[in-house]
Amino acid sequence: MTRAFNFSAGPAALPEVVLRQAQEEMLEWHGAGASIVEMSHRGPEFMAVAAEAEADLRQLLDIPDDYAVLFLPGGATTQQALIPMNFASAGQRADYVLTGHWGKTAVKQATPYVSVNVAASSEAEAFRDLPDRAGWQLSPDAAYVHITANETIHGVEFRDIPDTGGVPLVADFSSSIASEPLDVRRYGVIYAGAQKNLGPVGIAVVIIRRDLLQRDGQPRADIFDYRSHAARDSMLNTPPTWNWYLAGLVFKWMLAEGGVVEFARRNAAKAALVYAAIDASGGFYRNEVAPSARSRMNIPFFLPSAELDARFVAEAKAAGLLALKGHKAVGGIRASLYNAMPVAGAEALVAFMADFQQRHG
Amino acid sequence: MTRAFNFSAGPAALPEVVLRQAQEEMLEWHGAGASIVEMSHRGPEFMAVAAEAEADLRQLLDIPDDYAVLFLPGGATTQQALIPMNFASAGQRADYVLTGHWGKTAVKQATPYVSVNVAASSEAEAFRDLPDRAGWQLSPDAAYVHITANETIHGVEFRDIPDTGGVPLVADFSSSIASEPLDVRRYGVIYAGAQKNLGPVGIAVVIIRRDLLQRDGQPRADIFDYRSHAARDSMLNTPPTWNWYLAGLVFKWMLAEGGVVEFARRNAAKAALVYAAIDASGGFYRNEVAPSARSRMNIPFFLPSAELDARFVAEAKAAGLLALKGHKAVGGIRASLYNAMPVAGAEALVAFMADFQQRHG
Repeated sequence: MTRAFNFSAGPAALPEVVLRQAQEEMLEWHGAGASIVEMSHRGPEFMAVAAEAEADLRQLLDIPDDYAVLFLPGGATTQQALIPMNFASAGQRADYVLTGHWGKTAVKQATPYVSVNVAASSEAEAFRDLPDRAGWQLSPDAAYVHITANETIHGVEFRDIPDTGGVPLVADFSSSIASEPLDVRRYGVIYAGAQKNLGPVGIAVVIIRRDLLQRDGQPRADIFDYRSHAARDSMLNTPPTWNWYLAGLVFKWMLAEGGVVEFARRNAAKAALVYAAIDASGGFYRNEVAPSARSRMNIPFFLPSAELDARFVAEAKAAGLLALKGHKAVGGIRASLYNAMPVAGAEALVAFMADFQQRHG
Repeated sequence: MTRAFNFSAGPAALPEVVLRQAQEEMLEWHGAGASIVEMSHRGPEFMAVAAEAEADLRQLLDIPDDYAVLFLPGGATTQQALIPMNFASAGQRADYVLTGHWGKTAVKQATPYVSVNVAASSEAEAFRDLPDRAGWQLSPDAAYVHITANETIHGVEFRDIPDTGGVPLVADFSSSIASEPLDVRRYGVIYAGAQKNLGPVGIAVVIIRRDLLQRDGQPRADIFDYRSHAARDSMLNTPPTWNWYLAGLVFKWMLAEGGVVEFARRNAAKAALVYAAIDASGGFYRNEVAPSARSRMNIPFFLPSAELDARFVAEAKAAGLLALKGHKAVGGIRASLYNAMPVAGAEALVAFMADFQQRHG
């Protein structure tokens, strides 16, 4: 058994201590005679696990009581369709700010349900910067303004929360939730697939300011209605119980480690290490994102040739540094540095980068 | 560590050998340096796991090549909304046959998208029998006919496949898939939440005759489009990888045990044991379903009073027989006897029933 440093963009590394607990409890949970994955979601055991996970997430992210917290199956993409269905009337305008691949996905999913206004986009600059807030063409009557807090593929992250006046700000936080303190009150809706910073794949977290649940939205099945999920504590139907349980273990781990303040410190340290290595390489390693927009979570970079990119990925894997291949949309290398990646992982990557450059530079 | 006999209706018992393998592989999968739950769904390791699971399910259920097999997040209820969205035009008629709670749920989810025709219902008889096929009021122009192959709460199961002529038959098989041989060709669509007979919660299987994917359906987000999922091998977005992996382990276990022919034999034996105990109890235990419609998977029954029902559940739990409480919609007792429940579990239940009757009858 040798666990490597895993730089996967998601599904991503989980804390080893969490995996060990899940392993220990796999055949029997807390003397209950069965695994948690074998228990009714409506039984007292799982109900307690679910409630504790919600309470821990509320503590971790300082979520006010006037926000509902939902745990739903699947990932962020489903929410990108449910958000317009629930919060906009048919054909109403909604503003989207595009800073990478996932903002475009959000537009694609929303298009059947709203009149999408691309209020700003950095696509013409290949998503290497955030569009300046002063140039955003927001609609005063928009149902909401949608941003992607961190773009997992392009490595671009909002470092300031944009002011959208009275129009609710909806943010895809899939790849940066819980990576640093979050001012929930500045948002109408925060959503995230859990498989990056929150750990397990197969479940999404949706945080909704409760007054938005009063909106009629559009005709839709009950299973697509956030109000129904909120009214039933995300147990409208059988939820992904094991994934929810595993997320709860990750929340407890994050709280025990010092919460989002501590993870903000570690994440800043990890990112600073890797960007410094890139910037000090004399151009051997290149990250093309504007420094003020660089993501702390996902660092895409390039070597002088595609051949060297491929060799870097292969040699890194052999050295115990996994999943460093960049997304096929942009190529190159990508190092994802979520909460479960220790500072030692970033240090190992930086040491490998120096060694690789010495041998191939 | 004492694993009990777990009669939960779902999430339900998993084979112990599957849980043990998942436990062994929890920290590192096949020497890969990471757990399968930490790996990219687009990497070669998980792609192989996913493809093998599909191939094994195709072998297990003898699924012809002209049927697509999808693995989607969540449970059956989501499919109940996606089916009309994908296979009916807006407001088109669709026929529903109601034989219990889940048929009604299917109607509820479909109502925003189709003109629901309840072609037959046994609700007036408290769902204690199947409505006679001769009395079904089918619509010749219906988009499809929907049935619930096995009603998990009411304990009613179709033992013959109804003939619906040229109109595709769509069946919710959540609680009976893979419990016996299945003539897939008789159906247009078969769907099932996996958390009963297929094992893990958080993933659903949808089997679709490919010609139905040519239907336009209704305007919908890409993430709600079965064609998009089929074109991308259920990896349109990040799938619930761990749940898929665990389902794959269950498929391999079922094949190794002898496949659906062997499980049909075991399931018939288990159900026969429990129904015989009920019928031989002189009315102390009552199952109210017409014998020809009795479910092999879920056996609801009642004792002479609600007090005795509660005492039965509590004493059974103390004796290592878990989760026998009936669904709140009907009360009483419910014994679920899915594939992972060994014949020894049914024997233990029957022995406990005899003992309990002797003490309290």
